[in-house]
Amino acid sequence: MREQSVFTKIVNGEIPSHKIYEDERTLAFLDVFPTVEGHTLVIPKNQVEFLWDLDDEDYAAVRDTAKKVAKRLQEVLGTKYIGEKVIGTDVPHAHIHLVPFDDPATYQKAHADNTEPDHEKLAALAKRLAF
Amino acid sequence: MREQSVFTKIVNGEIPSHKIYEDERTLAFLDVFPTVEGHTLVIPKNQVEFLWDLDDEDYAAVRDTAKKVAKRLQEVLGTKYIGEKVIGTDVPHAHIHLVPFDDPATYQKAHADNTEPDHEKLAALAKRLAF
Repeated sequence: MREQSVFTKIVNGEIPSHKIYEDERTLAFLDVFPTVEGHTLVIPKNQVEFLWDLDDEDYAAVRDTAKKVAKRLQEVLGTKYIGEKVIGTDVPHAHIHLVPFDDPATYQKAHADNTEPDHEKLAALAKRLAF
Repeated sequence: MREQSVFTKIVNGEIPSHKIYEDERTLAFLDVFPTVEGHTLVIPKNQVEFLWDLDDEDYAAVRDTAKKVAKRLQEVLGTKYIGEKVIGTDVPHAHIHLVPFDDPATYQKAHADNTEPDHEKLAALAKRLAF
């Protein structure tokens, strides 16, 4: 059996996360290495490496969750833009980054993963954002 | 009546474009200021500023076209990754960027729009990519 991704471990509750939305097929939670406040990941629960290889049902579910969560981020955080990124080079489990921003330079910032996550701050934010 | 976006002019054929896919609700064409070979834009024909504000039908159609075209780009160009970007700060007409790449640094490159488009090269590429 192939190795479980870190996201599958989050889906299974083996690794804690700051969830903001969950349904049968998808999960949305705060990135623990945010490039900006509210940086969120939307994933299919089904572990498939690339977004483009999801089956139609999972793909539709992920994109619908992305829309739902983007609108929620905008409502709560009040940024003008909710950017999106799909890269696919880090975790081998499809995911969409949602990046709330006002200044375009903020969108361009690459992932900073060399700092310790601020779980207290993330938990408080997830509480504000949760459905 | 509000001003027509450059993308609406492309939809209406008032501005030429290097199309690779078209259906009733969506259009995909090569970005004339590509950050990488195969940089493609997927748009709804309906002029709405932000992706998140599309109605359910247009939103689903744009996402489905993005998947279709991403798979096509991968098949023809053979890159390992097809990245995606939604920014929303430039043209006030929803669009998804598809960015084929192998090296992650390529994905990060911001738009370079200070050069003259190479329409001959773009036309030849669109011919290879067209459905």
